[in-house]
Amino acid sequence: MTYELYYWPTIQGRGEFVRLVLEEAQAPYLDVAREKGGGAGIAALMRFLEGRDVRRPPFAPPYLKAGRLIIGQTANILQFLGPLHGLAPQAARDRIWTHELQLTIADFVAEVHETHHPVASALYYEDQKKEALRRAADFLKNRVPKFLGYFERVLERNNKPARYLVGTRLTYADLSLYQIIAGLSYAFPRAAAKSARKYRRVFALHARVQERPRIAAYLASPRRIAFNQDGIFRHYPELDAR
Amino acid sequence: MTYELYYWPTIQGRGEFVRLVLEEAQAPYLDVAREKGGGAGIAALMRFLEGRDVRRPPFAPPYLKAGRLIIGQTANILQFLGPLHGLAPQAARDRIWTHELQLTIADFVAEVHETHHPVASALYYEDQKKEALRRAADFLKNRVPKFLGYFERVLERNNKPARYLVGTRLTYADLSLYQIIAGLSYAFPRAAAKSARKYRRVFALHARVQERPRIAAYLASPRRIAFNQDGIFRHYPELDAR
Repeated sequence: MTYELYYWPTIQGRGEFVRLVLEEAQAPYLDVAREKGGGAGIAALMRFLEGRDVRRPPFAPPYLKAGRLIIGQTANILQFLGPLHGLAPQAARDRIWTHELQLTIADFVAEVHETHHPVASALYYEDQKKEALRRAADFLKNRVPKFLGYFERVLERNNKPARYLVGTRLTYADLSLYQIIAGLSYAFPRAAAKSARKYRRVFALHARVQERPRIAAYLASPRRIAFNQDGIFRHYPELDAR
Repeated sequence: MTYELYYWPTIQGRGEFVRLVLEEAQAPYLDVAREKGGGAGIAALMRFLEGRDVRRPPFAPPYLKAGRLIIGQTANILQFLGPLHGLAPQAARDRIWTHELQLTIADFVAEVHETHHPVASALYYEDQKKEALRRAADFLKNRVPKFLGYFERVLERNNKPARYLVGTRLTYADLSLYQIIAGLSYAFPRAAAKSARKYRRVFALHARVQERPRIAAYLASPRRIAFNQDGIFRHYPELDAR
């Protein structure tokens, strides 16, 4: 079976957390809106969001079509894919914990987006720049240390040689934490450089994931969309640490 | 087994989504920080958040202790409790869908909080009131219709006599949608009154849940904390619709 991933074709966004899992799993997938391209791509994307005959419509991209099943919400998609592709632990309690970590990552991602859109997603950054300056300052001062400090502790307390967040094997949560660090490094290079000295385990995990052969091949391929100013992680120098 | 719910003792907050499930399930539980009260209550709450010997620390309240298992992240807790107490569907595909709806509810809840704290959770409302006015206006104009319109569609397209979000039986997602409507009605009474005329299925679900005997008994009990100005749903008249 070939999965169909539905996501905006020009950004990494939340779709990237799914792409990383599919790439590490070497699962066959179509990145539907990108393959079709242009208007046809967007039309394909809107089909399940707006079609009146869709019984269980997703709220927003990304969503994944797996056979007849359509699954929305990033963390929900990963929870579905993980066990099918060896990217989730076996035991129920470990799976619950992995999903808990993923939901905390989702909260973190949402707060990243708020740094440049603290008033309204529908408005341009320039129309909420003043608010963004305040929001981003608080994000870097208070929220980044809270989140990264948390994941650093989780890695530290994973009794196994702390290479991964859960147990001794890579899970989808590790791939997502990799993506967060990659994104923060793009959006807030100065703040990220400071964080790298403090949250060594988290940044070491990022480096380790980046070097995995399938991930490295993916990152070097045209399938990896470059970070840009339309995604969740955007580089506005004025929002970065002084 | 008696569950232990760990959550801030003086607000409904995210803990309320868990309380509603435990109450509807008639599951024995201790609302730990409330039972202990005052400083001892908060100390109990912080124990698992900050204790150095906690191998898998939750990121934030609420978290649930079920035997030796500690589960954090509201949607994760509900996904755990639902199947144990007849508040989740049987089939895997239906459970995935229920969880998807719950995660969309979680996104909605996060945006409610942003209306009064668009700059920083750590600052007072008064210190971000100007930003809150802009954010809340966008929330009521664009986001509430998007979310409520979505859940209205979901109810409409559930082929069974559309009394619940999924299939023919109450799930934890219905209880959470009830709580959202209750909260919006407290925080934004004018906007909610307008929404009630437009999203009739959603508001009918709210009324139906409210009348369930166990929920009605809970709401009338001292266990239900009243909405107040410290929670997620706060009533600042200036943020409500004109």
